[in-house]
Amino acid sequence: MRIDVLSLFPEMFTGVFGSSILKKSQEKGLVQFHVTDFRDYTENKHRRVDDYPYGGGAGMVLTPQPLFDAVEALTPRSGTPPRVILLCPQGERYSQQKAEELSKESHLIFLCGHYEGYDERIRESLVTDEISIGDFVLTGGELGAMVIIDSVTRLLPGALGNEESAVKDSFSRGLLEHPQYTRPADFRGMKVPEVLLSGNHKYIEEWRTKESLKRTWKRRPDLLERVDLTAQEKKWLEEVKKED
Amino acid sequence: MRIDVLSLFPEMFTGVFGSSILKKSQEKGLVQFHVTDFRDYTENKHRRVDDYPYGGGAGMVLTPQPLFDAVEALTPRSGTPPRVILLCPQGERYSQQKAEELSKESHLIFLCGHYEGYDERIRESLVTDEISIGDFVLTGGELGAMVIIDSVTRLLPGALGNEESAVKDSFSRGLLEHPQYTRPADFRGMKVPEVLLSGNHKYIEEWRTKESLKRTWKRRPDLLERVDLTAQEKKWLEEVKKED
Repeated sequence: MRIDVLSLFPEMFTGVFGSSILKKSQEKGLVQFHVTDFRDYTENKHRRVDDYPYGGGAGMVLTPQPLFDAVEALTPRSGTPPRVILLCPQGERYSQQKAEELSKESHLIFLCGHYEGYDERIRESLVTDEISIGDFVLTGGELGAMVIIDSVTRLLPGALGNEESAVKDSFSRGLLEHPQYTRPADFRGMKVPEVLLSGNHKYIEEWRTKESLKRTWKRRPDLLERVDLTAQEKKWLEEVKKED
Repeated sequence: MRIDVLSLFPEMFTGVFGSSILKKSQEKGLVQFHVTDFRDYTENKHRRVDDYPYGGGAGMVLTPQPLFDAVEALTPRSGTPPRVILLCPQGERYSQQKAEELSKESHLIFLCGHYEGYDERIRESLVTDEISIGDFVLTGGELGAMVIIDSVTRLLPGALGNEESAVKDSFSRGLLEHPQYTRPADFRGMKVPEVLLSGNHKYIEEWRTKESLKRTWKRRPDLLERVDLTAQEKKWLEEVKKED
């Protein structure tokens, strides 16, 4: 997979692309990251990428020319048509399902504006996906791009070692994880639940499932609507609801 | 405001803290960022920060000692008790409201695990807030911490210049923004809507409000429930719904 990022702040990506799974995935040849300052594609001598909005009003708007030209220059670098992703508050809400969809592509190009608006013709004729990572205001698209790139790269076959993929699996059922404990058994007077020290695997599994149901019920009841529970689990969930 | 980050990958933060609004806010003295590798607080000679889970199972669990000791060492660096924030999928969903709440604090400490689980005693006795930025799987808490830090820092009085704060205001009503256009009026045959070139400010405002209502209705109808619309805007919204 080839991933291009168009940003006016390319130095923001160095630490993130150079660490952990993203670094290892590049070293393994699973993905190549390229960050381009799209100011390099401006045709005007002042290298301006934005201009005043038609119709007046505060704020600046990214002009179409540099982004169109940059995307067109980068498109042939892979053998397939890229997905061109715009990070913006109006976009579709990012989800794990979208991460899985994007992980099947060969070429992603991210457009990261930085507090400017985007000329509407960029949305209409250049972009394939508008994505928002949540209802909060960020200075630019860069952090959203990093979030998407991390979640997509970890889905590429071979990206995760055994340690990391084990954790990934804990999300797969759609319930929140049960509490975890490690040594020491007594830390400053705070003790690990007896059952986890019992060695009785049946009891341990039962305790974990109940705790997982309890936490999901208390914190994210919406998730329970999408999970297939066994008859036993449904009974436990009723107990959890009664206790609450 | 003082912001501490505890992470095993401190180099991930360099580019983000050194760019744009975050960099400027530090230079203005509005915020100080400190990143600590909590491995430096381990008491065992192998500098291990994680261990096997009690009760068995895959994956590793962050042991409480280094994180408790690191938070206790950092707490007195500010004059007030810190908010201790854990990034995790089980946490409360991050929102602009939470950003506003956190921006009123004097000291934030972020705990960033990296594909390990957290010993439950960390959640119960060290952490004040568990936060998730969304329903997607990330390799660690670092990107979530950056997202929160960016959204909180930009709310500090004096953090934004005029250009940036103008854009911030466009979110304040709770509607999605109308389309924006800048020069050229004709880009590769794609034209700017006539009304924006008309110079008639009444028509321009009307067009923008309608487009804003239309986009919000099509993409985020949930937002409309929370917005106070004028009688005229309600009428326009009905027109938009009919067209659809």
